[in-house]
Amino acid sequence: MKEQFVAYIRELQNTITAKVEECDGKATFRQDEWARKEGGGGRTRVIENGNVFEKGGVNISEVHGKLPESMQTYFGVEDADFFACGLSLVLHPKNPFVPTVHANWRYFELYGPSGNVAAQWFGGGQDLTPYYLFEEDAKHFHSVCKSACDAHNPEFYPKYKNQCDEYFYNTHRKEGRGIGGLFFDRLAVSDAMQMSDWFHFVTDVGDSFLDAYIPIVEKRKDLAFSEAHRTWQEIRRGRYVEFNLVHDKGTLFGLKTDGRIESILMSLPPHVQWVYNHIPDAESEEEKLINILQHPRNWV
Amino acid sequence: MKEQFVAYIRELQNTITAKVEECDGKATFRQDEWARKEGGGGRTRVIENGNVFEKGGVNISEVHGKLPESMQTYFGVEDADFFACGLSLVLHPKNPFVPTVHANWRYFELYGPSGNVAAQWFGGGQDLTPYYLFEEDAKHFHSVCKSACDAHNPEFYPKYKNQCDEYFYNTHRKEGRGIGGLFFDRLAVSDAMQMSDWFHFVTDVGDSFLDAYIPIVEKRKDLAFSEAHRTWQEIRRGRYVEFNLVHDKGTLFGLKTDGRIESILMSLPPHVQWVYNHIPDAESEEEKLINILQHPRNWV
Repeated sequence: MKEQFVAYIRELQNTITAKVEECDGKATFRQDEWARKEGGGGRTRVIENGNVFEKGGVNISEVHGKLPESMQTYFGVEDADFFACGLSLVLHPKNPFVPTVHANWRYFELYGPSGNVAAQWFGGGQDLTPYYLFEEDAKHFHSVCKSACDAHNPEFYPKYKNQCDEYFYNTHRKEGRGIGGLFFDRLAVSDAMQMSDWFHFVTDVGDSFLDAYIPIVEKRKDLAFSEAHRTWQEIRRGRYVEFNLVHDKGTLFGLKTDGRIESILMSLPPHVQWVYNHIPDAESEEEKLINILQHPRNWV
Repeated sequence: MKEQFVAYIRELQNTITAKVEECDGKATFRQDEWARKEGGGGRTRVIENGNVFEKGGVNISEVHGKLPESMQTYFGVEDADFFACGLSLVLHPKNPFVPTVHANWRYFELYGPSGNVAAQWFGGGQDLTPYYLFEEDAKHFHSVCKSACDAHNPEFYPKYKNQCDEYFYNTHRKEGRGIGGLFFDRLAVSDAMQMSDWFHFVTDVGDSFLDAYIPIVEKRKDLAFSEAHRTWQEIRRGRYVEFNLVHDKGTLFGLKTDGRIESILMSLPPHVQWVYNHIPDAESEEEKLINILQHPRNWV
């Protein structure tokens, strides 16, 4: 399963970065390969200052070794070896009418004293963070998510859609980071699902990513925008930073366990503003977005 | 002591905001008074888009009630009433040659079952975050800090200077947030110091703030700067955000206990950038700053 999923994310990184470059038409990804001294490493690909994408990263990593102490508490185990691999991506477009997107697909193994696989699971998802809301875009993104799920189990989409709304929530702002998508974790063997079933599910979601996102980019990337639209985008990007640095378990885990900082923080937007007590005008498009972030909706 | 310190910070807020406005010459502070439903409230004063100060806040608050659960663990007590008051300030200048400054002076009381004061202490300090380092400015700031300390005990300055370097440290970047100053916490009754002695110490530090900072602003605020200087300032401001959102106990405590978000997050800079893997040129002024942040120095 390890080898199979590593091969999958390597290939998916190629597919996604190729498509993103094609869509951008100007910038290309730079690649940084890095090694982790305790075992493993990664291949970080970052794009900056494109026609369409102001900043983004599509990173894979594959790490193993002794489970760090901070992770022991989190997983409720003592001394153990682990293996983890995954693809993480964030794309911050320049045009405020194009949403930011985040996705992650990962696989984890924990070993027993004799080197046996004591536990294994998949996790991940994909979610959208618009600055201006086009309902048809939200419906499109969620429809693709739902189709990927429904092929496996009709209960998956509602469940992982709700988990996404719950996870990507800025409790201190009382609003969602974005309009959600899918979020799942600890997908392990059950009566209904073997690991190979979960592999097919997670890779189907991964394969759906470009279909979910790129048509939205194509539709909005050439819309004219003003300085005011851009300011709003930069203020909202501040909320993205707040979520990632205050609440996101993955980011904090990486920062506190000596992960490769630049690969982790590639998720942070390029230009960001914090304005004291900014409140959008009544009935504005900006206020409409806030209302939706405060009250997650069913899009399909 | 409560009344005495509350009166002090109210007056100090007036003194500091008046001087900052005078130094700015254009913008004035807007004031927001707020109440906390569990008891107490605050007076937030924010300045934005000035000649000199791009954004800043000088806030006082005075809160009381049942100790929130998250604070119980932190203080190692169970059900208890508390009182806390303090002044917190952050000033982000526009000119990259003028450092950002932060200061805080606070007083805390914890009550026993019969309403008796079971514990009480002062905390706080002041610290400087330059984007370009002028050694004479660092020396000036630390000299004023040292004088305020030396009047009470020659051991205070080295002790609180070191605590400041340790506290304002971005572990994930392996560098200080800035070039430090003073940081002290849990200043409680001891053989040598009564609470009234600590009151005099903390208020002497508070009184030294304008002398420590304003002369630096006056000296640097009219220096010409380029777009490249400004970009560097915005990238470094990103590190400021990272410290405040990932590591600062006060900020995280406020965010997780339903404090007034806009008063807490006024500390975040107005315009910020994150650039992937930004590394300053060898021998540049930017690299010189990083070296100093990685190896805290004695300035006096």
